[in-house]
Amino acid sequence: MKAAAECYLCLMSQVLRTSRVLGLNEALSQTMAREACAFLAETDFDRTPPEISEDLYRLLSELSGNEDPYAEIKKDNIQKALKLYPELKQTVEASADPLRAALEISLAGNIIDFGANAEDDWLSDRRFLSLGSLALDDYDQLIKDLERATSIVFLGDNAGETVFDRLFIERISKKVRYAVREKPIINDATAEEACLSGLPEVAEVISSGCRAPGTVISQCSADFLKILKESQLIIAKGQGNFECLEQIPGPFYFLLKAKCEVVSRYLGVEKGSLVLTKSRNFQAKLALNI
Amino acid sequence: MKAAAECYLCLMSQVLRTSRVLGLNEALSQTMAREACAFLAETDFDRTPPEISEDLYRLLSELSGNEDPYAEIKKDNIQKALKLYPELKQTVEASADPLRAALEISLAGNIIDFGANAEDDWLSDRRFLSLGSLALDDYDQLIKDLERATSIVFLGDNAGETVFDRLFIERISKKVRYAVREKPIINDATAEEACLSGLPEVAEVISSGCRAPGTVISQCSADFLKILKESQLIIAKGQGNFECLEQIPGPFYFLLKAKCEVVSRYLGVEKGSLVLTKSRNFQAKLALNI
Repeated sequence: MKAAAECYLCLMSQVLRTSRVLGLNEALSQTMAREACAFLAETDFDRTPPEISEDLYRLLSELSGNEDPYAEIKKDNIQKALKLYPELKQTVEASADPLRAALEISLAGNIIDFGANAEDDWLSDRRFLSLGSLALDDYDQLIKDLERATSIVFLGDNAGETVFDRLFIERISKKVRYAVREKPIINDATAEEACLSGLPEVAEVISSGCRAPGTVISQCSADFLKILKESQLIIAKGQGNFECLEQIPGPFYFLLKAKCEVVSRYLGVEKGSLVLTKSRNFQAKLALNI
Repeated sequence: MKAAAECYLCLMSQVLRTSRVLGLNEALSQTMAREACAFLAETDFDRTPPEISEDLYRLLSELSGNEDPYAEIKKDNIQKALKLYPELKQTVEASADPLRAALEISLAGNIIDFGANAEDDWLSDRRFLSLGSLALDDYDQLIKDLERATSIVFLGDNAGETVFDRLFIERISKKVRYAVREKPIINDATAEEACLSGLPEVAEVISSGCRAPGTVISQCSADFLKILKESQLIIAKGQGNFECLEQIPGPFYFLLKAKCEVVSRYLGVEKGSLVLTKSRNFQAKLALNI
């Protein structure tokens, strides 16, 4: 999915949010905003939003000298999520359909995202536990494909929801590989955050090789691509992974909150909807032209 | 008041809103956003927001070939406001303090502003008639200065609220000059919109000479500056006029809705507050260094 005009505005809002997270003074905040504008005026918009984001956040890191502005926020979100974990696990186990309950919790965890939205009170009001129905819901098909699959990859998204993804993966009685970003980008999970979330207890944590906030195939490591090609089911979490992968034929299911107008419009759902959707380009094995 | 880092984001949101108002397709919207970024990367931010806005909107007009993108919206807002006028006039006349009631209606009319916010349902729910208390309220002092003054200028803001300003000016039993922008900018009132609002019936409509969305002293015509210098009371409506004039010693009262974080913070009020405030740099006559 290519970036749209609205992405200019969203990216600028991320620049200002990052300035606040970094605690920059007014002069430095203005410098950062100005440099971001210069970047946006020149960068190729005939790309997916995560590819543009990656370049923008690299610029912000260079300007601020901070490679991981969201480090503390990531840790904090994981701690908060881990505190909820025992209670949520009981909720799942007491449910009539534990897999479905765990999937909904994993999906609701996708509200945590400082890229698209700043909802830092996501835990305090426990909104994420009172889900409405999903705007797109291919659960029945997912279950069938999950039963058939012997090789499963879960593409993670943000730090914090990683704990809720663990709840879901626990319910899958098969080997799952959990893929994370290669290096810090916004609040996305890297191997470090996956470990802090306890994911190694239920999955093999692997790096995609990407440091974009999404799985950009051209950046993926050869090892990771080999794993993807051999997979019979790839569950991709979040907007970034959706934006990067929805055009690529393969065994993809997308699990995301549609956080912006651009993605919501593309999916044909209301902004803010929770979505579990089988790829429109679904096929049994990943086909790549690279 | 100088522009702040947040203004980069607000200005970009105005670019996208203008694209929508113009009905531009995706490719043209992207071009406009990209050109706006290039402008923002280069422009001098050591200026007031209306000065930057003026240059930005000139660029948007050049790119789109449309000198007045908000023309229809301005007319539509005036028509809606005129329909309400008889009922509001009765409300004012039935009030224990008609001048205060009219001032509150004029102030509430300041919610109409496509520059800072897009509240195009401002009339449908009549929110503007149910005012809370003002966050800053120098009404008692305004009344005294109004009694003393023999030469009064009212600096208008947006088309539509012009009709509500008329209600207020009707209650002042003195000659008032109503100043408008020289040329179209966003949805600000020019002489055309002031006339459509019936202002010539209650005031002498004059142009400031500016085409910024605020009264930029260095752009004002010599005739207008002469009038300002001779004034004993200048009531300035809206954020744009506040941003341009709050530093200038003179007989200013500011009547505005604090629409953004930058202005709210500066005034020490909550965002969205309605404000009637005597200038911190109030003095009996306008002092200019130009």
